[in-house]
Amino acid sequence: MALDDIKTPFGEVRGALGGAATYASVAASLFTDVGVVAVVGDDFPKEHVEFLKKRGIDTGGIKFAKGKTFRWSGLYEFDMNQAHTLKTELNVFAEFSPEIPAGFHDADFLFLANIDPEIQASALKQMDGVKFSALDTMNFWITGKRERLVKAIGSVDAVFINDAEARQLCKTHNLVKAAKEIIKMGPEYVVIKKGEHGALLFSKEGCFAAPAFPLEDVIDPTGAGDSFAGAAMGWLARTGNIGERNVRKAIMYGSAVASYNAEHFGLNKLKALTVKDVEDRVRRFKELTCFD
Amino acid sequence: MALDDIKTPFGEVRGALGGAATYASVAASLFTDVGVVAVVGDDFPKEHVEFLKKRGIDTGGIKFAKGKTFRWSGLYEFDMNQAHTLKTELNVFAEFSPEIPAGFHDADFLFLANIDPEIQASALKQMDGVKFSALDTMNFWITGKRERLVKAIGSVDAVFINDAEARQLCKTHNLVKAAKEIIKMGPEYVVIKKGEHGALLFSKEGCFAAPAFPLEDVIDPTGAGDSFAGAAMGWLARTGNIGERNVRKAIMYGSAVASYNAEHFGLNKLKALTVKDVEDRVRRFKELTCFD
Repeated sequence: MALDDIKTPFGEVRGALGGAATYASVAASLFTDVGVVAVVGDDFPKEHVEFLKKRGIDTGGIKFAKGKTFRWSGLYEFDMNQAHTLKTELNVFAEFSPEIPAGFHDADFLFLANIDPEIQASALKQMDGVKFSALDTMNFWITGKRERLVKAIGSVDAVFINDAEARQLCKTHNLVKAAKEIIKMGPEYVVIKKGEHGALLFSKEGCFAAPAFPLEDVIDPTGAGDSFAGAAMGWLARTGNIGERNVRKAIMYGSAVASYNAEHFGLNKLKALTVKDVEDRVRRFKELTCFD
Repeated sequence: MALDDIKTPFGEVRGALGGAATYASVAASLFTDVGVVAVVGDDFPKEHVEFLKKRGIDTGGIKFAKGKTFRWSGLYEFDMNQAHTLKTELNVFAEFSPEIPAGFHDADFLFLANIDPEIQASALKQMDGVKFSALDTMNFWITGKRERLVKAIGSVDAVFINDAEARQLCKTHNLVKAAKEIIKMGPEYVVIKKGEHGALLFSKEGCFAAPAFPLEDVIDPTGAGDSFAGAAMGWLARTGNIGERNVRKAIMYGSAVASYNAEHFGLNKLKALTVKDVEDRVRRFKELTCFD
């Protein structure tokens, strides 16, 4: 969980509630009961915790540590597909070693947001066996902890990764080749996120191409990937079905939530979003891709 | 029509038959009768003309001028979405002013491949009123002949343009905004080509998102945009239906042909392609985008 300073061509916010765990859990909470595990500092506003609780999110896994909350400062220029990191202050995040609360051990669905792959592995190990686990990652771990990351990938059911990261991880420009390489590492599903170009799902059963929703006003893409993954995981948990056809649907729910998320700063849009809104957009996705 | 020298990470060819008019007419000839208007030099191999004739293409509009054929030398690195032009020799193309043969004047469908927008306008004027016309363009004309280009765009029914060009033409990074701007210039349809990310169709009736076919082996993307547009135009001519639902289908036929085209050097793949091959891939596109 983070406090974000974000500047885009359409405005800026300072100290806004952010972080992968936040976006993912808020998005998932549209569809299912969520427990979040994270760390914040003593500067973390109480109202943020209250907000999460009001969404029905179990905040019992949030550790309140001495020091400052993780802080990210980012800038987007007119190419909103590209975030420019101005500053990353790890703060209490630097020493974070997540402990999964006893009440969370029997959860069926686990999303390991981007963090050190060793920590992802440790979190997975603390669970009493999950039905479906997924992880996200980033270039930093591909460069710095490749072996650990490959091992972590081998222990989950699905990987969420963006196109540049997939290319970097598999040392090929071709995304189909990269996806096949990642599938060989062990997971059943690989979801390659392409920002404004949508997402691709790969599995042994083939490939599914999800478009992005064509938005005229992208205000702030922060959290798009995490709200995408969170909503997809939430949909899977709600339906309890992890078959390929339902994973396709999950990706469309994820795409819908991510597209809404980009229409306002930070979590502002997600705060007021309803399942009906999401279903409306999923229907529009159908119309968007129909060629009968 | 051109003779191309192409180098990619997978090999190279020299003096291969190429050019926008070639790719577009060969692709369109899968679906309909085609007449091509172009210029070549006295170095142009007779076998290329024979090849076009064998495809049923009326070559009566090819002008044989004194001098050398237009020659393009291009290089692709591992990012096959990006062509690097090494050399462009206009040769006989520099003085080209197309004359539409009398027998072509009553054609219903006209595709104006990328060339000076004044020449596109002149070609359109020579026709006895067409049912459906489309043009393609490039950054060179957006920079150098913007007003003429905007006027030409206003006189056709559809524009084929790639994402970078649409952004440049409309001075916005947002493709939805760019498409709306172009629609305001007059055409009913705008097709934004995004290479490996597919294509977007915009009209007053809304938006359609076509994925690209996920290819594991892209050998040579030369001519992808022209075979895409040519096949789409061919499909429209074959069916005679220019309604939005059928334009969507045309785009999928175009995407299928373009994806095959990239699997071999130059025209090698298109040469042996059948309508059945294309229909197979259109069916696979349906499976690729289905989330029921």
